[in-house]
Amino acid sequence: MDAKVKRPLNELSATEIANKIATGETTCEAVVRDCLARIAARDNVVKAFVNFDPELALAQARAIDRGPRQGPLHGVPIGVKDIIDTADMPTEMGSPIYHGYHPVIDASCIALLRRAGAVILGKTATCEFAGSAPQETTNPHNAAYTPGGSSSGSAAAVADDMVPAALGTQTGGSVLRPASFCGVFGYKPTYNTFNKQGVWPAADSIDTIGWLARSIEDITLLTAVLRMETPASPRKLSAAPRVGLCRTEIWDTALPESKTAVEGAATALAKAGAKLRDIELPQAFAGLHAVARSTVNFYERAACMAFLWDHERDRLSPQMRRYIESGRKITRDDYVAGMRRLDQCRALLPGVFEEFDVLLVPCVPGEAPKGLGATGDPNMQAIWTALHTPSITLPTHRGPNDLPVGIQLVAQRYDDDRLLACSQWIWGRIGTPDMVGARRSS
Amino acid sequence: MDAKVKRPLNELSATEIANKIATGETTCEAVVRDCLARIAARDNVVKAFVNFDPELALAQARAIDRGPRQGPLHGVPIGVKDIIDTADMPTEMGSPIYHGYHPVIDASCIALLRRAGAVILGKTATCEFAGSAPQETTNPHNAAYTPGGSSSGSAAAVADDMVPAALGTQTGGSVLRPASFCGVFGYKPTYNTFNKQGVWPAADSIDTIGWLARSIEDITLLTAVLRMETPASPRKLSAAPRVGLCRTEIWDTALPESKTAVEGAATALAKAGAKLRDIELPQAFAGLHAVARSTVNFYERAACMAFLWDHERDRLSPQMRRYIESGRKITRDDYVAGMRRLDQCRALLPGVFEEFDVLLVPCVPGEAPKGLGATGDPNMQAIWTALHTPSITLPTHRGPNDLPVGIQLVAQRYDDDRLLACSQWIWGRIGTPDMVGARRSS
Repeated sequence: MDAKVKRPLNELSATEIANKIATGETTCEAVVRDCLARIAARDNVVKAFVNFDPELALAQARAIDRGPRQGPLHGVPIGVKDIIDTADMPTEMGSPIYHGYHPVIDASCIALLRRAGAVILGKTATCEFAGSAPQETTNPHNAAYTPGGSSSGSAAAVADDMVPAALGTQTGGSVLRPASFCGVFGYKPTYNTFNKQGVWPAADSIDTIGWLARSIEDITLLTAVLRMETPASPRKLSAAPRVGLCRTEIWDTALPESKTAVEGAATALAKAGAKLRDIELPQAFAGLHAVARSTVNFYERAACMAFLWDHERDRLSPQMRRYIESGRKITRDDYVAGMRRLDQCRALLPGVFEEFDVLLVPCVPGEAPKGLGATGDPNMQAIWTALHTPSITLPTHRGPNDLPVGIQLVAQRYDDDRLLACSQWIWGRIGTPDMVGARRSS
Repeated sequence: MDAKVKRPLNELSATEIANKIATGETTCEAVVRDCLARIAARDNVVKAFVNFDPELALAQARAIDRGPRQGPLHGVPIGVKDIIDTADMPTEMGSPIYHGYHPVIDASCIALLRRAGAVILGKTATCEFAGSAPQETTNPHNAAYTPGGSSSGSAAAVADDMVPAALGTQTGGSVLRPASFCGVFGYKPTYNTFNKQGVWPAADSIDTIGWLARSIEDITLLTAVLRMETPASPRKLSAAPRVGLCRTEIWDTALPESKTAVEGAATALAKAGAKLRDIELPQAFAGLHAVARSTVNFYERAACMAFLWDHERDRLSPQMRRYIESGRKITRDDYVAGMRRLDQCRALLPGVFEEFDVLLVPCVPGEAPKGLGATGDPNMQAIWTALHTPSITLPTHRGPNDLPVGIQLVAQRYDDDRLLACSQWIWGRIGTPDMVGARRSS
């Protein structure tokens, strides 16, 4: 008996699934059955999925198998953060207020995925309204630790092989932090790359839809679909990338494992031939994480939650009430000053990236913190979200508790293709396949 | 009998209504009754309202009158473009697809208005999904002419004294053009000033919520509420404004009445003491209206309409299908090039405004075109929407058919308070009260 044949289909990448279905080697139904089996076996502990109907998933799969080829994701199961509207399953926003809520249409990103042949396997747990109050999801590496958030379920489901890829959203660090904590790739494109129609807003001027997956190749494929492009192989670099090692002003908030990850990656990359040099951000960037998280995020949150504040305050979490209360105290002038600061810093980015293809920066302070009451510190991810630059985390390292610690790579705005190509180059030099996901741990 | 007492309350401004209710001189119910009477008398011709329940409006009014003072808009009736979610009345997007659709919560802007004590009088006609396919609204000055769009009903309702102010949205020129055609003030703030939660997206990177009203004072009041600020009197200028007369590269598309309006305003302003000087936009701005309207608008439209394109194509208008088809042909590279162009031009704005408080620019090619099948040319408004600059139209002039022709004033991003103060100064020098609205015509 061939061992390869017995590898469960839920462990395959999206690219592999699409290829095997295209060649007739397997069916969408078989893939979905293996994903469902994994969920049945593990989700009582991981609690990645919140709205999820096995029969609906199988019905979608069978319809895909019966029908003509839809597109490049034909038959690929995808998990979807539960703040993204789906017409055929509830969208509950991680809040009792939206219990049982059924949107009338799919969000733009969901429609584009289905157009490409994807099966929406189910909705993944999100912190309440993509904020900071978590649901019950655990880290698939160790259930005593947070998976990160707010795209908690998306990161956990992908890390635990329940689904090859999942949609998340990032306003502070809600894609890259859970990806880093769960040991998967997390990618936030340039702001406004994936259309946000049908996605609950947190702070609209920085909210960005992103991907959690187990390979850069998958992220490239999935990104092409949401960019309404024909997928192509990831661009190959013609020369070794120019990498700026940027510790950032909050370097001291990093634990040893995160410093080791970033500096270890830098050393290994230099050895592998990357053109590596230190870079310090201009003085104008000082305190940008606070501008992003406290001023812009809270102010816009107070605005977009106006109805729920007035009518459903008792059913909001204490964390969300604090966000909104903070936002209501921010003056318009302070908000505008924050927006101007972000503009000024964006205008300095051409200088920052003049001699670099990507910056190598810390992604997280360290491993996932213990406990499920909070999802960790978003400062290191939030700087780049607010600057609208594309960023990605690669699951390169582990910490003292053998939990994942990712590094973060950042590129100039709209240089997403370069970021993905550099990431592929870098992962090829310093990545280890068995660092991806929780298979080793679980 | 005092003539003043007999002036119908629907003819008052929002500021006047709020003051009279606050002093006990009238009640919200009395105001709403006069608005309803006006609608009953005129809306069979004007067709400004689409979702509208007199009993619900009166019930809101009575609740306001019975309850404690809510805020600065206590008792003020407001019209709302029907792409903005309201929890207590349908939101139909100007499309049969959304016939009878009931959102579960109010949009952020509606919640903030209600928090301030406003009565949502009803929903106003919009072009389909804030695009270009009009509903049946007519120009209240002459029913044979378009009121403009896509905020058609909001402009017509305000011009016809059905309501003192109404919310619109602008992606190309959907606030300022109908305001100009109907002879009211139309204001589009700096991009992202009013939170868009609960508003149907057209092209999210440029969509902006704005106001249609019959006075700048009202716009200032209403804007403070949506900015979550305590209203203050419009800022007074300490010196005459520095006005840049900017004909723009599409000056030749203006009809004589629009050229006369802009140049006449310039002459009158110089005479009144404004520091007036010609300015030409930098070469980088060439063709920006096309970038805004065709590239960015169509591309994002194709993305955000993905579900409706796949599932409801037959119920989309031919105009919308053309938008989406055009958008689907735009490559990602072309879209990104357009977004970069806009960024580059925004970076040049400090230079453009270095010596000017506001630019005086054409608002529309001319009077409202005849016929109800199309809503006019948005190029002159679209440049500034895409640049994210605040813009306002003042109803200063009339054309050969005695229909209104507005001028447009534009300020630097985030300089909304300066724009409103300059507009007040300018209106005080060159405005004529009886040019506002359709009372003279109807």
